[in-house]
Amino acid sequence: MIVGIETGGTKVVCAAARADAPDVPVLTGRFPTTTADETIGRIHDFIAEAGAEDAVEAIGLASFGPVDADPASARYGWITTTPKPGWADVDLLGRVVPRGTPSAFVSDVLGAAVGELRYGAGRGTSSLAYATIGTGVGVGIVVDGRPIGGDGWPEVGHLLVRRHPDDDYAGNCPFHGDCLEGLTAGPAVLGRWGADASSFPESERAGRIAVLASYIAQMAYSVILTTGSEKVVLGGGVMLSPGLLEATRAALPAIARGYGPKALSVSDPSEVLVAPGVPDSPGVIGALALAADLL
Amino acid sequence: MIVGIETGGTKVVCAAARADAPDVPVLTGRFPTTTADETIGRIHDFIAEAGAEDAVEAIGLASFGPVDADPASARYGWITTTPKPGWADVDLLGRVVPRGTPSAFVSDVLGAAVGELRYGAGRGTSSLAYATIGTGVGVGIVVDGRPIGGDGWPEVGHLLVRRHPDDDYAGNCPFHGDCLEGLTAGPAVLGRWGADASSFPESERAGRIAVLASYIAQMAYSVILTTGSEKVVLGGGVMLSPGLLEATRAALPAIARGYGPKALSVSDPSEVLVAPGVPDSPGVIGALALAADLL
Repeated sequence: MIVGIETGGTKVVCAAARADAPDVPVLTGRFPTTTADETIGRIHDFIAEAGAEDAVEAIGLASFGPVDADPASARYGWITTTPKPGWADVDLLGRVVPRGTPSAFVSDVLGAAVGELRYGAGRGTSSLAYATIGTGVGVGIVVDGRPIGGDGWPEVGHLLVRRHPDDDYAGNCPFHGDCLEGLTAGPAVLGRWGADASSFPESERAGRIAVLASYIAQMAYSVILTTGSEKVVLGGGVMLSPGLLEATRAALPAIARGYGPKALSVSDPSEVLVAPGVPDSPGVIGALALAADLL
Repeated sequence: MIVGIETGGTKVVCAAARADAPDVPVLTGRFPTTTADETIGRIHDFIAEAGAEDAVEAIGLASFGPVDADPASARYGWITTTPKPGWADVDLLGRVVPRGTPSAFVSDVLGAAVGELRYGAGRGTSSLAYATIGTGVGVGIVVDGRPIGGDGWPEVGHLLVRRHPDDDYAGNCPFHGDCLEGLTAGPAVLGRWGADASSFPESERAGRIAVLASYIAQMAYSVILTTGSEKVVLGGGVMLSPGLLEATRAALPAIARGYGPKALSVSDPSEVLVAPGVPDSPGVIGALALAADLL
């Protein structure tokens, strides 16, 4: 048996599967993220349940962050500087994984990138990015089959983007003001327009969606130019807004102008900017896949 | 004996070394890049000379591009869409390397990144970027010890940057106008100010240097956020302008604002943004290192 765990900022998803079928959980659990002690206790309960008949041979853990995912670091497996009360400087991997059990640790979005590449919208690619535009903006990146990430990076949510001419919102990132996250994450959308992106009034929808799309397309452009992603999977609550995925696709060629790697030189990027393909939690499926890789 | 070759847009540098000391060439050659046939002929002559006593056991090739550096591609080792007359769609690796000799192929800047990481300003790091701001802008990136790159990427020279308020130059990139390369490469500097960056009049130097620095610092910020580079080595003719490296260092903290991985959260980035440390041609030293890795 293998176990995958995705510790999100608001909820935890756990799943157990056979090592030869990481994408087919045989047991799942889901509970809110509360205090570190309580949450880790419930994860222990899940691991015990998963291993009741067949021993748990490996665990993959994909966590909200910022995390230290550099195996060479003394704080590998820690949640580091999160503002979430009680969760900063927590040795999550060390406290979750029983001594002696092989384990893998990545950020939540990197777990989702692995899940999408192996079992979702990125099947057949070897380089892929998974971006979530939700409460915050996070991006996980796989390059040539290898998940990349270390101590506090990637942090693509804080890229600087060029302002859309119709957008005069100052941005709400406490560090950068109008970086990508400060302009497109859920709280920024609500702060700017007083409504979440899914409930914009019909008459104002297209113009607002175009603003968000221009920023998200710039992120995709930068990530593809830098890391060669063949596809960028766009997830998260904001991306559920009607028309946003389509508008982001429409914005990309106007930015790339036919230049660069194949993913940027196509005239129709509908195969490049895609919705998630793993139905529920790509992060936990990715965590299971990383656990299976250890065996 | 191993051979490293850097085919630049204007000149070719060749070097031969013992496999156990790739950074100490025992034979070097240097000639202009002319036609593909003539240039490849002179490379063959160098390889023959290098192997006159001890056989050439491996060859590393770092080339101007765009190149296809994806080993899984049918055109691996090719120069692809270059505007340089006679050099588009040339199977450079196939024509340079004798059949049966192990070989490695990367872009010129990726070769330089490897050279700097192993033997130059990046010693001790495992993730590093090398950027050249010269006739064009190119960036090579090593992540966790692995050079990354494929068919037409990375292409970080074409990142979109935010305009400096004192800069109204339209930019000269034929694709993007005012992307990084269109604003900071040598031809853009000359087009905007009528002088190269090393010869700005004293009275106007600081203001002009600050404009260039703001763009180059944005590139470093994006690359570090995305790929976790511990250092960004800044080379190329434009970077030789007095004060530009220092001004770029000064610009970085104002962009990063203390957020992100260690390389961005330091208050003094003089250890992060650095000049090249390989005295002459980091690209050819990197090519030698990659050749040595094959044995």
